[in-house]
Amino acid sequence: MRDMLGREEVISVEKAKELILKHLLPKTLPEKNLKIEECYGLIVSRDIFSPEDLPEFSKSTVDGFAVSASDTFGATEGMPAYINVIHEVLMGQEPHFELSKGHAAKILTGGMLPKGADAVVMLEHTQQVDKGIIEVVKPVAPGENVIQAGEDVKRGDLILKKGHKIRPQDVGVLAGLGIIDVWVYERPKVSIISTGDEIVPPDRHVKLGQVRDINSYNLASLIIDAGANPVRKGIFNDEFEVIRDVVERSLKDSDMVLISGGSSVGARDVTASVIDDLGKPGVLFHGVSLKPGKPTIGGIVNNIPVFGLPGHPAAVSVCFEVFVRPVLRILSGFCENRFRIEKRIIKAKIAKNISSSPGREEHIGVYLEEREGEIWAVPLLGKSSLITTLIKADGTAVIPLRKLGVEKGEIVEVRLF
Amino acid sequence: MRDMLGREEVISVEKAKELILKHLLPKTLPEKNLKIEECYGLIVSRDIFSPEDLPEFSKSTVDGFAVSASDTFGATEGMPAYINVIHEVLMGQEPHFELSKGHAAKILTGGMLPKGADAVVMLEHTQQVDKGIIEVVKPVAPGENVIQAGEDVKRGDLILKKGHKIRPQDVGVLAGLGIIDVWVYERPKVSIISTGDEIVPPDRHVKLGQVRDINSYNLASLIIDAGANPVRKGIFNDEFEVIRDVVERSLKDSDMVLISGGSSVGARDVTASVIDDLGKPGVLFHGVSLKPGKPTIGGIVNNIPVFGLPGHPAAVSVCFEVFVRPVLRILSGFCENRFRIEKRIIKAKIAKNISSSPGREEHIGVYLEEREGEIWAVPLLGKSSLITTLIKADGTAVIPLRKLGVEKGEIVEVRLF
Repeated sequence: MRDMLGREEVISVEKAKELILKHLLPKTLPEKNLKIEECYGLIVSRDIFSPEDLPEFSKSTVDGFAVSASDTFGATEGMPAYINVIHEVLMGQEPHFELSKGHAAKILTGGMLPKGADAVVMLEHTQQVDKGIIEVVKPVAPGENVIQAGEDVKRGDLILKKGHKIRPQDVGVLAGLGIIDVWVYERPKVSIISTGDEIVPPDRHVKLGQVRDINSYNLASLIIDAGANPVRKGIFNDEFEVIRDVVERSLKDSDMVLISGGSSVGARDVTASVIDDLGKPGVLFHGVSLKPGKPTIGGIVNNIPVFGLPGHPAAVSVCFEVFVRPVLRILSGFCENRFRIEKRIIKAKIAKNISSSPGREEHIGVYLEEREGEIWAVPLLGKSSLITTLIKADGTAVIPLRKLGVEKGEIVEVRLF
Repeated sequence: MRDMLGREEVISVEKAKELILKHLLPKTLPEKNLKIEECYGLIVSRDIFSPEDLPEFSKSTVDGFAVSASDTFGATEGMPAYINVIHEVLMGQEPHFELSKGHAAKILTGGMLPKGADAVVMLEHTQQVDKGIIEVVKPVAPGENVIQAGEDVKRGDLILKKGHKIRPQDVGVLAGLGIIDVWVYERPKVSIISTGDEIVPPDRHVKLGQVRDINSYNLASLIIDAGANPVRKGIFNDEFEVIRDVVERSLKDSDMVLISGGSSVGARDVTASVIDDLGKPGVLFHGVSLKPGKPTIGGIVNNIPVFGLPGHPAAVSVCFEVFVRPVLRILSGFCENRFRIEKRIIKAKIAKNISSSPGREEHIGVYLEEREGEIWAVPLLGKSSLITTLIKADGTAVIPLRKLGVEKGEIVEVRLF
């Protein structure tokens, strides 16, 4: 998009994201049924309800003696209650006896409460006085140290909502309820297309003027990290027909298409033309007020998001976090059922003055240091084109759109790698 | 370990960790050589040095014109420098010409600087005046908009240190340097043994008194999350010979052994006896001042860490984070080359008064809420034995050893799931 003077119009990151979200129609990934052993980290595609009550029987939460609580009322150290222990509850077995008044049964944590008992006295509050007789030195209330049948989960309770990302403890709870397989969404497929006449694969000898493909390897790992499956399509020359052909094929077998490279104006124009040519609505923005990452192109073709990412490796990492990861979350079917903490963002003090142009969001590579108990972000200055900056950095400090810069000691948000 | 009165002696979490670290001898996991496409998230087992200079040639960082900087000295809007554009640098090709004084070559970002040029004028600072002639309205200094050959990486530079965990951008940089495979440590293998006469597998019908195995499923996912490989050994009865046999077999094929269950005193004693029986130094601690998680057992047999974890599912999650994950980091060969941010820990305001016994570290299940821009941690009270607490919680609020409790509004650390 160019203004009347032929200059490229850039829009803010917020506006660019809004455009994508506005044009992306609701869409559902295919589902699959998986054993719970394989479902960790995937997204639940159908509400999961409990098939049964949990626990199925009332049980003890401590080691001690199952009793009728009324037998212990008023018991103290000075005036203990005396109770006959004439039974024992075996683990994993239903007790085939009924407690009478004044009687107790030895029971372990998780043991099933026998008929006639309504509480459990902890071992620590008893004293063995004779074979088969204990002193209880502290009373228990009815229900004390017991989980009632069905108290934890009722048959039909909603356990995990559609859109929930399965955590380790969720897998445990599914096992506990006897649910051994679940319906989850398949991971979205993301095609990665490297473009540039100068780009060669990493296993190839480079001639003068050529460079090896960095971006598709960085992107593939970022896509795995975001819970999706990367498909590296290869390296292609910056020609309309060539790029059009591979993007068209990629649209058929992926849920998102990333075109990396083409940092020159001509190459960017090829990418934009291809996106516009292949379907509606086509290019939604071309150029954002983001540094690095200004030449980013965002579009949608037949409801599949297509991004043209800058060729510069540091810009690729920033654009992935700013645009690609949030859109992947939506495509994955992940719903924010809970309050979300962005674990990747921390606050730190910036270690140097940094100036920034107003009207753009700037991401500066930083490494972190602890100084007297505080976290400081040390900017990695120098040429941003150096790829070693990528290795030295722990993350990027973000200078927001409306700031002219930050002063040493100011608090900044650092987006961790 | 019991004191003179036969009571179990409990030690602090810190002391327990120290005991493990003190007795764990340095040990190296087997290595394997992997394609870089498969190495994301693994630990580098040998220092990686650059096989070549990067870039191999001086190149432009902008779209514009390669020039001799001296031809532009003093140029202004009012008094531009006029330069003849008689060449063009093609992407991916070595320019087979040499620039003479007063001449320029069209060049794109990443293009190789031709002989005779020492800087690049940005397209934006020029104006086409005639076919083949441009006005330059701003001077460039020698080296401006150019990365020199070898400026980024020198042959022999250390790229990734032994012990470094490979991040997405590291994979990209390896590809950029033509390194297509790397030596990494294999993931540690962790055996999970479920014990308890009442435990049945999740696919089995439960009889009254029985419960399904939750812990080994929760643990397996936690182990994957920590970068290790879980091996579920199955469910075993709480008998010395049975447990001894499976632990002995597990010690032969794993780097760590977790024994889950046995929350009763008798079962815990079996676990402790087995650990002591199988090798030195055996049990290092039996009981920690941690809630939930007090009955945790920690030991080392033939330099393999063995933990006896409580049967209670919530305690298993807490013990994993407190003991198992830190020890797994060490076993994995991961070295803290960089300042470490614990992404899992955030600060929040506690939403209710919580009392706690002094002298123990307490972990309380909480869910998070935003209230007027602040993060609040709402305790999930009620019986801690309920497994639904595990599903409702976003993490646990930690009340440290020396605190008697926290008051509503106080800042606590929350360890996110």
